[in-house]
Amino acid sequence: MKALVYGGPGVKSWTDVPDPQIVRSTDAIVRIDTTTICGTDLHILKGDVPAVTPGRILGHEGVGTVVAVGESVESIIVGQRVLISCIKSCGHCANCKTGLYSHCLGDEGRSGIGWVFGHLIDGTQAELVRVPYADNSLYPLPDSVTDAEAVMLSDILPTGFEIGVQYGQVAPGDVVAVIGAGPVGLAAIATAGLYGAGSIVAVDIDENRLEQAKTFGATHTVRSGRPEWRDEVLAATDGAGVDVAIEAVGIPETFTMATEIVRPGGHLANVGVHGKPVPLHVENLWIQNISISMGLVNTNTTPMLLKLVVQHKIPADRLATHTFDFGHVEDAYDTFSRAAETHALKVLISH
Amino acid sequence: MKALVYGGPGVKSWTDVPDPQIVRSTDAIVRIDTTTICGTDLHILKGDVPAVTPGRILGHEGVGTVVAVGESVESIIVGQRVLISCIKSCGHCANCKTGLYSHCLGDEGRSGIGWVFGHLIDGTQAELVRVPYADNSLYPLPDSVTDAEAVMLSDILPTGFEIGVQYGQVAPGDVVAVIGAGPVGLAAIATAGLYGAGSIVAVDIDENRLEQAKTFGATHTVRSGRPEWRDEVLAATDGAGVDVAIEAVGIPETFTMATEIVRPGGHLANVGVHGKPVPLHVENLWIQNISISMGLVNTNTTPMLLKLVVQHKIPADRLATHTFDFGHVEDAYDTFSRAAETHALKVLISH
Repeated sequence: MKALVYGGPGVKSWTDVPDPQIVRSTDAIVRIDTTTICGTDLHILKGDVPAVTPGRILGHEGVGTVVAVGESVESIIVGQRVLISCIKSCGHCANCKTGLYSHCLGDEGRSGIGWVFGHLIDGTQAELVRVPYADNSLYPLPDSVTDAEAVMLSDILPTGFEIGVQYGQVAPGDVVAVIGAGPVGLAAIATAGLYGAGSIVAVDIDENRLEQAKTFGATHTVRSGRPEWRDEVLAATDGAGVDVAIEAVGIPETFTMATEIVRPGGHLANVGVHGKPVPLHVENLWIQNISISMGLVNTNTTPMLLKLVVQHKIPADRLATHTFDFGHVEDAYDTFSRAAETHALKVLISH
Repeated sequence: MKALVYGGPGVKSWTDVPDPQIVRSTDAIVRIDTTTICGTDLHILKGDVPAVTPGRILGHEGVGTVVAVGESVESIIVGQRVLISCIKSCGHCANCKTGLYSHCLGDEGRSGIGWVFGHLIDGTQAELVRVPYADNSLYPLPDSVTDAEAVMLSDILPTGFEIGVQYGQVAPGDVVAVIGAGPVGLAAIATAGLYGAGSIVAVDIDENRLEQAKTFGATHTVRSGRPEWRDEVLAATDGAGVDVAIEAVGIPETFTMATEIVRPGGHLANVGVHGKPVPLHVENLWIQNISISMGLVNTNTTPMLLKLVVQHKIPADRLATHTFDFGHVEDAYDTFSRAAETHALKVLISH
């Protein structure tokens, strides 16, 4: 088969590799119909994720068709159209039993980490992929859901919802600020209303992204990078701050911005993937009765989110802005990596 | 009356001041029978809390007898023996209605902050004190509770319990580490069992405090300041880390220690009062699915904790190590400020 293989920092190639095989009786082999690119893939290509070694097939999002299953697989059958979750979960370890799939103790890839595709085992930017724990990691798809909608459920919709909205403890009537209106920030914006957010304030430095944010449910937009940004966010509140601040960028400046707008008793949900420490101003914050949460998606809300996509309650399709065929995967990366210029949100690679 | 008056950084005096008067109809005047000193009082004396201005009577903990009540006070009567909560709460603002007394919007002292005694209004290290919102801020005491027990309910027991144990989301069977076995750390240790903590690991640099911690409920003790401290904490767990890490010191080093021992899916409850920023290692922690909480005590668990003290389920009396009379309040400060040497926990000032 052909696959996108990591060759070390800055190097990738769409090349011939051996087809994956069933290794354990709980595996399935899936033929990829649609995959996409994540910001994390760009980090890997920069060499920021040293656990990814040359020879690894990239990608952790995908929709496809089952072509083989191991003998223990019970609920997935050959020929089924399935969503591939970005998180492997054995379903029976102590962490899986509490819904903490992000830290599944099953030893696929590495015990204690749920994100293994395109990281510690071969990923989904390929014609075929081996999926461990197929009963838990695959979700059969109804015909009414398109590939473009479904592939948003591999990672970004559950990440925005679980790590942003749920960890942020959004409650009815809340003012929720989302800093960073990229794909994951938009996923948080699109799902904050599920728990009754009264106002959703999108904060971004890019005017185009703020316009996009309105179509996903933002009730207010604030352009950052200007001194008045904070006053404009507070104007959407009673003056004391937002109930929930969701950080969806992953740099110290935006993390600190989130701490500056959250009200006493409020919540800061960090969704961003960070590369360096942030100065936490506990000399001011200790008295503020806030919580700060962070984490890798568990994907245990995938069935709920899939229902909502079926019901057209989440505009998943509009997260896909560009589509390429598999032979042009390198062009897809180019378009995604220049998102500010190309206005790309999610870039699909599809047959 | 006589009172301990702040005179600016490093200056305090036990001196004559006018008796307090009823100012609002919701006030009470309480004759102080027993008060005590908090680490925060030492910070104020160093000049670290600029909101405290010269002339302010210090102190925010106390037990006494009601000598006058305003005409709107309903549940408190003259002659009653009462506990004074360190937090004023109007009981009817938006924050009080959610239990967030720490940020009471009533305008006594300042709207939005519950801690006003010895800070923004005159405090309890005095013969008499004016207590705003008497119906909410005072708790009648049963005869079976001593002053030494009751005064621990003004601040340290609810702080350790609410900001450590409750915000830390302690659950049955959890391994809880408490970093810092001073009075508030001991209050967390003494109350972690209420929610079923399976193991309670006290971590402190001082061997005497670790010995004390055992008598308050610590099942394991680890002396910090040694390279092996972390391995010794993890030895009390399944190897993945503690379920809840409670920081009860308030310096960057101990905050970072707490982040280094908390398991994926666990909680870090900051109780310490900090004076400078801490570097938060989100480059490692973002993927750990932890929450970090912090805050000023609400004191809305005071009735529950009072019941537990009455039932002898919390050894409140043993937090008091020294007693001085009001004429020797300056000696009390001296003993408390040299706690490492004097082995002081809480130092009482009493008639």
